[in-house]
Amino acid sequence: MNFASDNTAGVAPQIMAALNRANEGFALGYGNDDWTRSVEKKFCELFKRDLAVFLVPTGTAANALALAHVTPPWGAVLCHADAHIAVDECGAPEFFGSGIKLVTLSGVNGKLDAVTVKTQLDNKAQWGPPHHVTPAALSISQASESGTIYRPQEIRTLADIAHAHGLAVHMDGARFGNALVRMNVSPDEATWKAGVDVLSFGATKGGAMGAEAVIFFDPKRAEHMAARRKRGAQLASKHRFIAAQMEAYLDDDLWLRLCRHANAMADRLSSGLTQAGFAPKWPVEANEVFAALPVALCDKLQAAGAVFYRWASETGADGRETALVRLVTSFATTTDEVDRFVAAIAPR
Amino acid sequence: MNFASDNTAGVAPQIMAALNRANEGFALGYGNDDWTRSVEKKFCELFKRDLAVFLVPTGTAANALALAHVTPPWGAVLCHADAHIAVDECGAPEFFGSGIKLVTLSGVNGKLDAVTVKTQLDNKAQWGPPHHVTPAALSISQASESGTIYRPQEIRTLADIAHAHGLAVHMDGARFGNALVRMNVSPDEATWKAGVDVLSFGATKGGAMGAEAVIFFDPKRAEHMAARRKRGAQLASKHRFIAAQMEAYLDDDLWLRLCRHANAMADRLSSGLTQAGFAPKWPVEANEVFAALPVALCDKLQAAGAVFYRWASETGADGRETALVRLVTSFATTTDEVDRFVAAIAPR
Amino acid sequence: MNFASDNTAGVAPQIMAALNRANEGFALGYGNDDWTRSVEKKFCELFKRDLAVFLVPTGTAANALALAHVTPPWGAVLCHADAHIAVDECGAPEFFGSGIKLVTLSGVNGKLDAVTVKTQLDNKAQWGPPHHVTPAALSISQASESGTIYRPQEIRTLADIAHAHGLAVHMDGARFGNALVRMNVSPDEATWKAGVDVLSFGATKGGAMGAEAVIFFDPKRAEHMAARRKRGAQLASKHRFIAAQMEAYLDDDLWLRLCRHANAMADRLSSGLTQAGFAPKWPVEANEVFAALPVALCDKLQAAGAVFYRWASETGADGRETALVRLVTSFATTTDEVDRFVAAIAPR
Amino acid sequence: MNFASDNTAGVAPQIMAALNRANEGFALGYGNDDWTRSVEKKFCELFKRDLAVFLVPTGTAANALALAHVTPPWGAVLCHADAHIAVDECGAPEFFGSGIKLVTLSGVNGKLDAVTVKTQLDNKAQWGPPHHVTPAALSISQASESGTIYRPQEIRTLADIAHAHGLAVHMDGARFGNALVRMNVSPDEATWKAGVDVLSFGATKGGAMGAEAVIFFDPKRAEHMAARRKRGAQLASKHRFIAAQMEAYLDDDLWLRLCRHANAMADRLSSGLTQAGFAPKWPVEANEVFAALPVALCDKLQAAGAVFYRWASETGADGRETALVRLVTSFATTTDEVDRFVAAIAPR
Repeated sequence: MNFASDNTAGVAPQIMAALNRANEGFALGYGNDDWTRSVEKKFCELFKRDLAVFLVPTGTAANALALAHVTPPWGAVLCHADAHIAVDECGAPEFFGSGIKLVTLSGVNGKLDAVTVKTQLDNKAQWGPPHHVTPAALSISQASESGTIYRPQEIRTLADIAHAHGLAVHMDGARFGNALVRMNVSPDEATWKAGVDVLSFGATKGGAMGAEAVIFFDPKRAEHMAARRKRGAQLASKHRFIAAQMEAYLDDDLWLRLCRHANAMADRLSSGLTQAGFAPKWPVEANEVFAALPVALCDKLQAAGAVFYRWASETGADGRETALVRLVTSFATTTDEVDRFVAAIAPR
Repeated sequence: MNFASDNTAGVAPQIMAALNRANEGFALGYGNDDWTRSVEKKFCELFKRDLAVFLVPTGTAANALALAHVTPPWGAVLCHADAHIAVDECGAPEFFGSGIKLVTLSGVNGKLDAVTVKTQLDNKAQWGPPHHVTPAALSISQASESGTIYRPQEIRTLADIAHAHGLAVHMDGARFGNALVRMNVSPDEATWKAGVDVLSFGATKGGAMGAEAVIFFDPKRAEHMAARRKRGAQLASKHRFIAAQMEAYLDDDLWLRLCRHANAMADRLSSGLTQAGFAPKWPVEANEVFAALPVALCDKLQAAGAVFYRWASETGADGRETALVRLVTSFATTTDEVDRFVAAIAPR
Repeated sequence: MNFASDNTAGVAPQIMAALNRANEGFALGYGNDDWTRSVEKKFCELFKRDLAVFLVPTGTAANALALAHVTPPWGAVLCHADAHIAVDECGAPEFFGSGIKLVTLSGVNGKLDAVTVKTQLDNKAQWGPPHHVTPAALSISQASESGTIYRPQEIRTLADIAHAHGLAVHMDGARFGNALVRMNVSPDEATWKAGVDVLSFGATKGGAMGAEAVIFFDPKRAEHMAARRKRGAQLASKHRFIAAQMEAYLDDDLWLRLCRHANAMADRLSSGLTQAGFAPKWPVEANEVFAALPVALCDKLQAAGAVFYRWASETGADGRETALVRLVTSFATTTDEVDRFVAAIAPR
Repeated sequence: MNFASDNTAGVAPQIMAALNRANEGFALGYGNDDWTRSVEKKFCELFKRDLAVFLVPTGTAANALALAHVTPPWGAVLCHADAHIAVDECGAPEFFGSGIKLVTLSGVNGKLDAVTVKTQLDNKAQWGPPHHVTPAALSISQASESGTIYRPQEIRTLADIAHAHGLAVHMDGARFGNALVRMNVSPDEATWKAGVDVLSFGATKGGAMGAEAVIFFDPKRAEHMAARRKRGAQLASKHRFIAAQMEAYLDDDLWLRLCRHANAMADRLSSGLTQAGFAPKWPVEANEVFAALPVALCDKLQAAGAVFYRWASETGADGRETALVRLVTSFATTTDEVDRFVAAIAPR
């Protein structure tokens, strides 16, 4: 019953098998290998266009490098106040961006809304040289930190506002697969066709060991990225092993199957919680479920072996203390685990 | 016959096996796992003292983070002109160090010598605020980029000079194992007992998939390193898989056996080259052999399937053009490959 | 009728006279001169303690250097959402701090309040390595961007909270003199005795040509600041001329007299505006007056020669459009100017 | 007899007079004033072309901002090993350039020579992504740190090499006037017509209080420089006073007259030293004279009131200890001072 994070899962068997297969013979380092070439080709096919791909070992690296590449040092990145880049990366975007500023905005369900973004950008008195930073990028998280997702039309609307103001659009897709499989759209429709310029495409949370990609949909935007990645100490020497992971992740739609399972487990959890009277706080659209549980119940669940984080606590009007609990599912979550957890909440 | 680099080899079977074993069940991310605890313990035992370890995915990350941690932004790092940190990391130390300066020194056989270092540091007119940077670290590569090694007494001498001038001593140990097995000393004698303060302990070139460690021999020096690593985007989420590699590398002296093999292959190459009249340019003390070969011979060897880099070319007094060739061996190099290469050089 | 900013005024005659006097003979550069020694002594006397002073040419430099010196790169500075450091310095704190993060908080009348600061700092889930930045400094603006001031007891309360959480307290005193003369307290009581650790002491807006000081009340905190200032390109070579300005500013309480005049002019403006039915939006406590004026009136005033900025515009419930106007007075503002401005607003 | 530096002089009377005149009435801050417009116009006339000018308070600021603007973070600046940017700015270029690398080259008489620069740039194995930094700028000091100068043809040759390799050409013109008046050429011929792309035009050493200009000869290159200057904390609020200095410096060829005088004083010193048997070490082409004097003589001179720096000391074959002495003249140096100094060296 480990719902602490999707990174507590191991590696999907198909990806581990690919790593074992890749461990054959010699291959030039730093991406000059066949696996890397193959991954690049697969991404072009997946997104139905020419693009530039840079593989890196961590999601924070993907985000920080991507943002630094589209934001000058005197630029600002607009993002949700709960965004991973703003809260959970210990200032990596600011570091890689040589001092860029993250401007955080509020928004219901963990998502940015068009009115807030537009109002912020239209407030011209706050932007521009010499005194003010220049807005340079809009970053949205797909799925969001609240487990919700942006529909293509929402992305389109936000991207149009961003582009009209000269900003690039970045998508933190650490859980891109989980978002995608919830919608009846293709990867291209969910990204560049909706206005996304650069994507952090995550595989680690989805089932890889440590493999993320920065994807520039316009390859011209990627100029100098090879230098930026290297000096960011993010160029793996035995690069074939990152590429092999990503190749296996994409191969035969493995990623979509893994993400679909993770989402299904989240739905099952959501369902069980709702029936037990603890309806999730935000729509469950990816693989995260947030619910307010009585503290005593949390204690009991954890004593029973459930692993999860309590994000905030609150004392209700009735004096009862509750904790906002985050439950994350993954490709490795089993129905049995979910059912045991739900049963522990609401024993018959 | 791949001698292009030790990173063209794959993963040692024992390490791959460990990765497969580690892929069992759930484990908390970011180093909060048993493998990481075990690695920390192993390093303490190996170096016979309390110390602080930080695992990272790349060697450049290890170097850049280590140097940034012991050098203030207005500080300088003294190193050999051929050092990897100075030449091959695309400015990563400068980036992670927020603009530190690398002061490069010459030295025979790819090694820094005490006189040069002392002379540089004693030239007080060039150092110190407000106008000049402050020397803060001395970095030596073990083994060096020329495949030579520093004996403990040499390290001691350099470290004493560095310490007397207030500098920390960093060792870039991307090939630490290769250096160590050449000498009849223990890891502690080759490092902190000789004055090394912080070590980039490499495993990737030795046989891992992608695992390096920054080791502070005085744990107090490691304060804030957790934050620095994270904002450097170098904290792996599924951290157990880096730890499992390192654990297997250290386990049962695997690393020493792998490095001993690589060195033996270099010796065999060196021997063959010498007999063929192409004695190595620098002493072969680790797993790299440098030799000046006629260009026509290089062409022939590469046509025959040998893979290696030509580092520089020169036209001799006799008008004959030669290339300085770098041949790197690894745990995966076979005697057969070496013998075929040597035979191709000097066919009977 | 120039109320655009206090930096539109020239240089106070006494300070210009001092510059002329200082232009006599030779003096060593970079602060190794008698004027600099004298300023250091004067500051110690003024603040009744040993301290460390660093003169710089601009206020942004003072703030950015001060914050960078008390905040590690993985640290955060808490400040008001309207703070000059957050809004008007084009990311200089982030740049000088190698990617520090500014966390902006709201607060009435342009001031931070204790509850907001404490709540933010107590939210431990948002702070600390490895995932989150570490709060390292609290910055308050005295006077604030809204022209209001912090009383010593308010500073004490905020500083106690900050210190209890391990933060340093910075005061942006670009208008420190204007704040001080409003209160019946001495410079020491308004700063270090109330908990301020580092002060940006401004003289430029007060009447100098370009002279600001970073003051560390604990000289030990200033270690390495000489290097930081130089590499920040903020060490004037003909340093005596910055020092001479500051010396004259402090001499014989000139600064207090200049600031008292500026404040009196603001009061006179405030009074006139209130009588005309345009009571200031925030308490007028220093030398800035903010009032909502009908757009038509703004146009009329500017046509009549008044110079000022419109900060925001709003359409009232009655459909009438107003502009939030900022009026700044200085040592150079005359009663005649103020009276003509008021008369233009409310002609009899 | 102050020969310590040209920054030990005060402000030229004409410039001080201009500052007094500029202190009249109100003027908008941050460069939105008539003095600034006038300076911009004057520079265009002086250099006979459209260009972009940014005034800053210090020479280090001019150099660091200029280099950072033409060098990406993964770029390198080639310069002489003695260059001010490499030795005397405490890492400011590296800081403003977010970690750029300065590659220092040797060269006789303090000057870079074409062969050395070309050889370095042609060594392709050392340059370029992903592993190596990219050479981005060549910086030459006019006059050099050894008091020598580059003739237009020398600049042309170096610039052609630089441009052919994709580098921008920066000139550190802290003593540009001193160099110019030695040659029979115009400012345009000595800069952009010879291939200089960006110039740090110094006025402080020449006789201003603190005024330097970054000049981009192609205004398009200056894009975003306004933001870079501000976040570098180098935008003066009472900007008219920097502009007024520069205007007076340029007005009526004052700068050329001041520099001509300084040079003449250096020549007179050189002459006297030569006659006394202490011929300067390097050609005296600007306002600096370097000579090896016996230590005992140095002591005597300083006891007699002469102020100067000893740069290095050496023990000759005859066992006699000498010091390399730097003597700098300025607009304020008098023939009387020079003659007294020379007389003290070689009393009749």
